[in-house]
Amino acid sequence: MPEEIPKDSVGLVTPQTLHFDMPLGLDCGRELPEYDLIYETYGELNAERSNAVLICHALSGDHHAAGYHSMADRKPGWWESCIGPGKPIDTNRFFVVSPNNLGGCKGSTGPVSINPQTGKRYGPDFPIVTVGDWVRSQAQLADRLGIERWAAVIGGSLGGMQALQWAIDFPERLRHSVVIAAAPKLSAQNIAFNEVARQAIMSDPDFHEGRYYEFDTVPRRGLMLARMLGHITYLSDESMRNKFGRELRQGKLNYGFDVEFQVESYLRYQGRSFVDRFDANTYLLMTKALDYFDPASKAGGDLAAALKPVQAHFLVVSFTSDWRFSPSRSREIVKALTEGDNPVAYAEIEAHQGHDAFLMPIPQYINVFRAYMDRVAEDLS
Amino acid sequence: MPEEIPKDSVGLVTPQTLHFDMPLGLDCGRELPEYDLIYETYGELNAERSNAVLICHALSGDHHAAGYHSMADRKPGWWESCIGPGKPIDTNRFFVVSPNNLGGCKGSTGPVSINPQTGKRYGPDFPIVTVGDWVRSQAQLADRLGIERWAAVIGGSLGGMQALQWAIDFPERLRHSVVIAAAPKLSAQNIAFNEVARQAIMSDPDFHEGRYYEFDTVPRRGLMLARMLGHITYLSDESMRNKFGRELRQGKLNYGFDVEFQVESYLRYQGRSFVDRFDANTYLLMTKALDYFDPASKAGGDLAAALKPVQAHFLVVSFTSDWRFSPSRSREIVKALTEGDNPVAYAEIEAHQGHDAFLMPIPQYINVFRAYMDRVAEDLS
Repeated sequence: MPEEIPKDSVGLVTPQTLHFDMPLGLDCGRELPEYDLIYETYGELNAERSNAVLICHALSGDHHAAGYHSMADRKPGWWESCIGPGKPIDTNRFFVVSPNNLGGCKGSTGPVSINPQTGKRYGPDFPIVTVGDWVRSQAQLADRLGIERWAAVIGGSLGGMQALQWAIDFPERLRHSVVIAAAPKLSAQNIAFNEVARQAIMSDPDFHEGRYYEFDTVPRRGLMLARMLGHITYLSDESMRNKFGRELRQGKLNYGFDVEFQVESYLRYQGRSFVDRFDANTYLLMTKALDYFDPASKAGGDLAAALKPVQAHFLVVSFTSDWRFSPSRSREIVKALTEGDNPVAYAEIEAHQGHDAFLMPIPQYINVFRAYMDRVAEDLS
Repeated sequence: MPEEIPKDSVGLVTPQTLHFDMPLGLDCGRELPEYDLIYETYGELNAERSNAVLICHALSGDHHAAGYHSMADRKPGWWESCIGPGKPIDTNRFFVVSPNNLGGCKGSTGPVSINPQTGKRYGPDFPIVTVGDWVRSQAQLADRLGIERWAAVIGGSLGGMQALQWAIDFPERLRHSVVIAAAPKLSAQNIAFNEVARQAIMSDPDFHEGRYYEFDTVPRRGLMLARMLGHITYLSDESMRNKFGRELRQGKLNYGFDVEFQVESYLRYQGRSFVDRFDANTYLLMTKALDYFDPASKAGGDLAAALKPVQAHFLVVSFTSDWRFSPSRSREIVKALTEGDNPVAYAEIEAHQGHDAFLMPIPQYINVFRAYMDRVAEDLS
């Protein structure tokens, strides 16, 4: 392995794609006639096929969770802090599978893919997908990979919701579920932020009702605004203060509307760079999947009842300064699991980084996560 | 008074406008050669001219704080809950003066006004105004009205910042300062929200670099987004939950991007109706005034030192669920005042309504406010 890549990284990785020729029925009532799932794997599947771990990504995540695609990559995958040799999701012990979700824009079938029925990109005709749909498609992926039962299904934020849904929908197909910085459903405020983001995208004149590909444009302004807004909710007030305070970029007020405060500069940069790597229709779909997630609804709002079929053991993790999905939201999950006598470990990590903390190498978090994964590894034999 | 108007309202009111022919020097280094201030008054100025109270408005507020402009008005002024006969700001006792701030769009000189130097609307050429500028212009207004000393200067949110600035800049010209739901300066997160709102407006193709008047259009989409976003920060998570929960407008998911959740419907309505009554350039200016407000900066960041000249007695009020300017921000003001031995009463009101609570008739709030204003009235004689 080239010396530039750290020893505790999985190193160079190559995504793979599987084509699924059978239709996938969706919660919306429509079906996808066929689809691709792109995914990466790290580590080796053992002979008993018992050490496979599924990683579920969040809103703007993808299959590239760890390692590097080439030596030219400036950054590793999005969860490099937690996946690799000796890390909590230890690739010396686990076979890690990390797919891009349906509706995504990084290789799995989504709005940018060609609709076989029209020969054109799906665009706004791509169906609304739900967390449940993702879980079903991930189960198809597991079948193809010969994985009958996951050692663990793991995710943060929207990824944690998938880990929860897995335990409900396929109780016998996972031993452990790790739900980090998630919530059992969105609050009105969460939905409100998503709605403003969607309106920003959909009201951009370059959106063309989602058919912007045909106009050879993208709703840059709208997607940029959506991302800027997202970033505010990913960081805590405190982490923003630590990062930027009220620092002025040029040391003094300029009495104009150009960038003045460092935080403005940061947000504009985040917004701009996102536009180059993410599809607006995918962003819309991901926010809807968040809004719709509500496993308790099928049980009349009773989460404990909804979790009745669950067999998996749980680790639930929250972060004190996360105001997008605060610790109290994680405790709702813990409470419902406890009511059903499901084994659950819960850790509330002292952290100032807000929602983004789940991506960070915070010692207490890493230790708790590693200790739990040690137990998962012990269960393999 | 017509029977449709409640007895505890100031009733029908008519705004007045004063023209100021002398230049006003601004913090940005420019000056306004001449300007108008529109204002309303309620109650009667007493013979000693000692019972005048100044109301300072917040971001989207104006001079119409109480009463009705005509019998056809569906809604009274924005602070009807607190201004009127028998209310905390009792118009039987006080002479209430409520101006629209410079840079506004309701009659005081602002971006929509004609620039005497060009014969065209100011638009983006209107200077950036600060809380300090407003206070200086309000002092000019006081001079013209023959008010040497306010019995109290009162405001909520950005209005509370003006009340604080008054006490610093004109210590001998007010007896009391009432600072409600405010902060001594914005946090990085506060600035970040303002920045997203500004970017929404400025990136709207109909913004035309602020000269949209000349194109006979307005940046509707951008201003609508800015307002939607603002509303999220005005309400608490809890009040949104109480108001909307996850209620669906049509009782079921429709798997599309039309309005589904009640909270979406509410936000879109708020956004749309705001566009018809507010100017985008004014919105930009008001957010900048917020961002720039930082009275401690002149004293090297030491708020207590900045407050040294203060002679006014203070009432500071915060609301438990206000996450825009949380109680801890109000306590910073109280702490700095206390360090300087300035008399200050502080009330933290238990309320679930978030930042908007300052506009609401919450009994504990009204009682505290009334009790304090009783003291202000006793000081008149």
